[in-house]
Parts: sequence; structure tokens; C-alpha cells
Amino acid sequence: MGRVYAGASTSVDGYVSGPDFSGFEHLFRWFTSGEVEVAGLKTSQASADYYGAMLANTGAAVVGRTLYDHTNGWGGTSPVGSHTVVLTHRPLEDNEHFTFCTEGIERAVEIAREHAGDRDVAVNSGQMARQALDAGLLEEICLDLVPVLLGGGTPFFAPGKGYVLEGPLSVVEGVGVTHLRYRVRYGSPA
Amino acid sequence: MGRVYAGASTSVDGYVSGPDFSGFEHLFRWFTSGEVEVAGLKTSQASADYYGAMLANTGAAVVGRTLYDHTNGWGGTSPVGSHTVVLTHRPLEDNEHFTFCTEGIERAVEIAREHAGDRDVAVNSGQMARQALDAGLLEEICLDLVPVLLGGGTPFFAPGKGYVLEGPLSVVEGVGVTHLRYRVRYGSPA
Repeated sequence: MGRVYAGASTSVDGYVSGPDFSGFEHLFRWFTSGEVEVAGLKTSQASADYYGAMLANTGAAVVGRTLYDHTNGWGGTSPVGSHTVVLTHRPLEDNEHFTFCTEGIERAVEIAREHAGDRDVAVNSGQMARQALDAGLLEEICLDLVPVLLGGGTPFFAPGKGYVLEGPLSVVEGVGVTHLRYRVRYGSPA
Repeated sequence: MGRVYAGASTSVDGYVSGPDFSGFEHLFRWFTSGEVEVAGLKTSQASADYYGAMLANTGAAVVGRTLYDHTNGWGGTSPVGSHTVVLTHRPLEDNEHFTFCTEGIERAVEIAREHAGDRDVAVNSGQMARQALDAGLLEEICLDLVPVLLGGGTPFFAPGKGYVLEGPLSVVEGVGVTHLRYRVRYGSPA
């Protein structure tokens, strides 16, 4: 069975968005920092290899309704893997690409796991990842660490406290980004 | 001339202290994660090499009065390098190990540079580092990235915004910590 993971481009001081939703020109610069194309990015060879492998290994995703609406439902096709579960209080009709789940994060991840098979499940965005973390379902965190200090804004995964990680399991140097993977360790910290 | 740098043990979500000053058992675990002794730490070989070289290359420090008082003046001896400049509104008498500077961060760094010679100047803690950053004096940031999610507390370097960094200049894997060095780039972001 694959792993359940979440990730985000994050500043060195821990923000996924700067004050007043600023900073994205820094946080997402690595999306266009090279010549190698992968999933809509034009990035460095190292980042493309890393991100491409991650996407290839991802069979399904769990997202919130906000993200679904914001992207206009990705034009009707699952953005990652073959299926996306949308956790929502306002379900639409299920179809081959999307399942609308009203039964909470555990059930949403369970459905995604069924679709993913041996491949991984991606959880997006931060609010969903946080729910999965609190429910003990999130297994890995993929940090795309970007060399900028934003000094405020939306922190990665706040609020919450004291989740111990293991790793980094891997460190990949791109151009303008360091990709770090960590395993979440639940239970009493040593 | 050496570089002016600041650093901190920081959680993956960007906090140097958790909610209600929690989390230090995680943030500082790498201080005692091995058998190699350096400057009061017992840590991994990699961290000891990294930290030992950093200390050996540091000729002087700039600290705030709060840290000076909190450590009881380090028993009268400069904690790093041969001299420490204490930025304060309540100066004590200068001595061979300490200069008490009331003239602002620029002057404090200038005095420290004179004492450091060709070696580096360390700026501690976060509030001083932030002043040095805002004054355009901080040249490098040394991030000791610790695999824990604290979910709140005191962020690294807040408030502030939009300082672009270069690097990482180096990535060193310790046990329970990843040491990342970045250069601060001032001026208009590209």
C-alpha cells in the first residue's frame, strides 16, 4: 500500500504564503527555474526528476472543496493520479474522476487509498493535510524549502503542536528549492 | 573580512520556539544526539564538524542585553570568539571580553568586526538578528532544520518580509537536524 503524503513550497521561516498573500513570486519561482518540463512546470532537471517521480507514484488525491472550486474542478479531470476525493459539506455528483465525500477525512483517505492501490495518496491543501495529520493518517511530509524570508503570513500546518518527524528521508537540491521528505511519527515522542 | 551571520534551530514549520515556549526538547535534541563533544554539545560527527568549524571561524559576537542577563553574562567570558558586543540601553562597564554598545546595531556590528578581524561575527538571538537583517548587515543565515512540527509559537525572524536568500550554500546532514547555510541578498529582488 502506498503512503499518504502532503507537501508545500515553504519559506525558510516557515510560511506557505507571505503577509496579505504575498510572496508567491518567490515561493513558486522554482516552478519556472529551468528548462525541463513536467506537469506544467519548467524547472531544473533535479526538481523535474523529483516531482515527476512523485506524481508518477501518486494514484489518487484528497482535496478540500475550496481548492476544487478555486481550480474550477480542474476542468473535470483528476489533477493527480486517476481519482480525486473532494471532502465537502456540499457534495456534487460523483463521476469517474471525482468522489465527493461528506463523511470526514478518515473516509476520504480510505476512498482515495482504494483508488490508489499500491500507489500513494496526496493530500492538499494545508487545511486537509492538517486534518489528516490530526487524525493520524498523514505518513509523509514533503517540504519544498525556498530561500526567502517572508516574515509572516500563513505558516505551514498551523495550528497544532509537537508532531515529531523522521528524516529527512531524502534531500534533493533543485534550483531555488531544496526538496526534503520526512516521515511522520505518531505516538508518544521519545 | 569575515561574514556576519545568524542562525537558529528551527522546526520544519518555521518556529524557533513552540506555543507557550514549548518544543525545546525537540529543537535542541540534536545537541545531545551523538557522542562527539564540541562546545558543550554531544552530537553526531557531522554536526560536530559543522558546528565546531563555525565556532572556530567566529571571532566575535553581537548579542542583546536579554540574552546576556539570561546567561548571567556567561560567567564573564565571551561565549563565542574572543569578544562579545552587548547591544543595550543599560550599559555595564566594558572589559576585555565584553563591550556594551548603546549606539545601535550598525555600531555594535562594527565593533564586533574590529574584534573579529578576518573571522566571522555571530549575531544572537532572533531580535538582534532581525535588527541586523533590517539594517542590511546580516550576510548569512544558518538554519538548523529540525524534524518536528510545532504548529505555533515564535517564528524565525518575524516580522519582516521579502528577504531573498541565495543557496543553500551548504547542506550538512546530522542526526535529527539538517544544517543549511544561505546568503542574504539585499536590493531589489530579481
